[in-house]
Amino acid sequence: MGKDSIGAVRVLAFDIFGTVVDWRSGVASQVDRIAKDNNAQLDGGAFADAWRSRYLPSMDLVRRKELPWMNLDALHRRSADELLTEFGVREALDNSAREELVRSWHHLPAWDDVRDGLSRLRKQYVLAALSNGGFALLTHLIKEAAIPFDCVLSAELCEHYKPDREVYLMAARLLGVRPEEIMMVAAHKWDIEGAKVAGLRTAFVERSLEKGPNGRADRLSDVNVDVRAHDFLELAKNLGC
Amino acid sequence: MGKDSIGAVRVLAFDIFGTVVDWRSGVASQVDRIAKDNNAQLDGGAFADAWRSRYLPSMDLVRRKELPWMNLDALHRRSADELLTEFGVREALDNSAREELVRSWHHLPAWDDVRDGLSRLRKQYVLAALSNGGFALLTHLIKEAAIPFDCVLSAELCEHYKPDREVYLMAARLLGVRPEEIMMVAAHKWDIEGAKVAGLRTAFVERSLEKGPNGRADRLSDVNVDVRAHDFLELAKNLGC
Repeated sequence: MGKDSIGAVRVLAFDIFGTVVDWRSGVASQVDRIAKDNNAQLDGGAFADAWRSRYLPSMDLVRRKELPWMNLDALHRRSADELLTEFGVREALDNSAREELVRSWHHLPAWDDVRDGLSRLRKQYVLAALSNGGFALLTHLIKEAAIPFDCVLSAELCEHYKPDREVYLMAARLLGVRPEEIMMVAAHKWDIEGAKVAGLRTAFVERSLEKGPNGRADRLSDVNVDVRAHDFLELAKNLGC
Repeated sequence: MGKDSIGAVRVLAFDIFGTVVDWRSGVASQVDRIAKDNNAQLDGGAFADAWRSRYLPSMDLVRRKELPWMNLDALHRRSADELLTEFGVREALDNSAREELVRSWHHLPAWDDVRDGLSRLRKQYVLAALSNGGFALLTHLIKEAAIPFDCVLSAELCEHYKPDREVYLMAARLLGVRPEEIMMVAAHKWDIEGAKVAGLRTAFVERSLEKGPNGRADRLSDVNVDVRAHDFLELAKNLGC
């Protein structure tokens, strides 16, 4: 990425699940606890993986208008209801326990490098969360994990899910900048590609453990971006912060 | 306010201009500087007062659909163009200088008690900005003044201006709470009354110098609210933080 291109970027927009927080560890441990509290036999890690595997397909139903707009909590609830049957514990978890399951996505740990990396980046850039998570979910998550963002932007605000270009362009419009003045930071190739189509700059951060030790996370070699890094400290360094 | 009512509140939503930041000092000093840079004779304090006096009337034009939706930057520009003629300096300030004038509302100082008060309140509540300012304006202002909010909400997100109930109800919806679980904190009676109509709890903070030493700011005795305070430190104390 040339210096001129870097110089034009004023906003860094961050994907959240996997890029900023470790959804798998966080969801798995809460599923284990909720299952235990309800005397249900459920493997938290396996359930988290199955749940996340429905993430993109469930949003695609909304993107193709096969489902009306609903936020990610509602999609998570819909997927959880189906999976509890598949895992044979449908009867063990009542409505209140299922709501608690859905809320586990509101409480996830940040990767170790996030707070220090963002604190450095924040001196030079406006830092926005830009996630498919609902606005309340993102606000709760960011507050609890003490992640230093300047603002929260959610797909819910425009009722489109990434990688629809509407989400990326909403961020530019609301923050008063041109698309090329925002850089999308994500650990997923599909998000990077969506941002590019909308005209944003892109940064890929490799989170090799995002899907657990046996999962297949996207790798640096998979993507073509303006900036690449192994964590947020390296991202800060590569952006001159 | 009874303890049961206080116990139900989970979100504090803050008005910004006048309540959190000293718009008059901030705008006046920047107008003085911009006028000087352009060799224009303009009294910053008088211009700031005249500009602010058009704030509610200009939003009312949008609220009554006599103007299409436009954000506060656009309304500020519209009012400034008229006022520059009235003040006899229309020719002295070119388009670039007028844009700079409009951007003065993006750079305003917080009142002295704000950061400490909010830091205490933030341990117990979700803190949201809820202002008629545009999203970019609010994000810039809050970042620059290092004001510890958990999220930024703007009238721009629902294309209605306070005191339209849509703005207050949008905050409840996006933050996943019922209206009575949000408390609106403001220094203006009209904002408090709007929040009440929408079903929110209310807190009035008196900012007697908001409109300058000779201005007539709303006083504690003018309003009927759940909680009242002279500054954010007293607000925190009154809310048990």
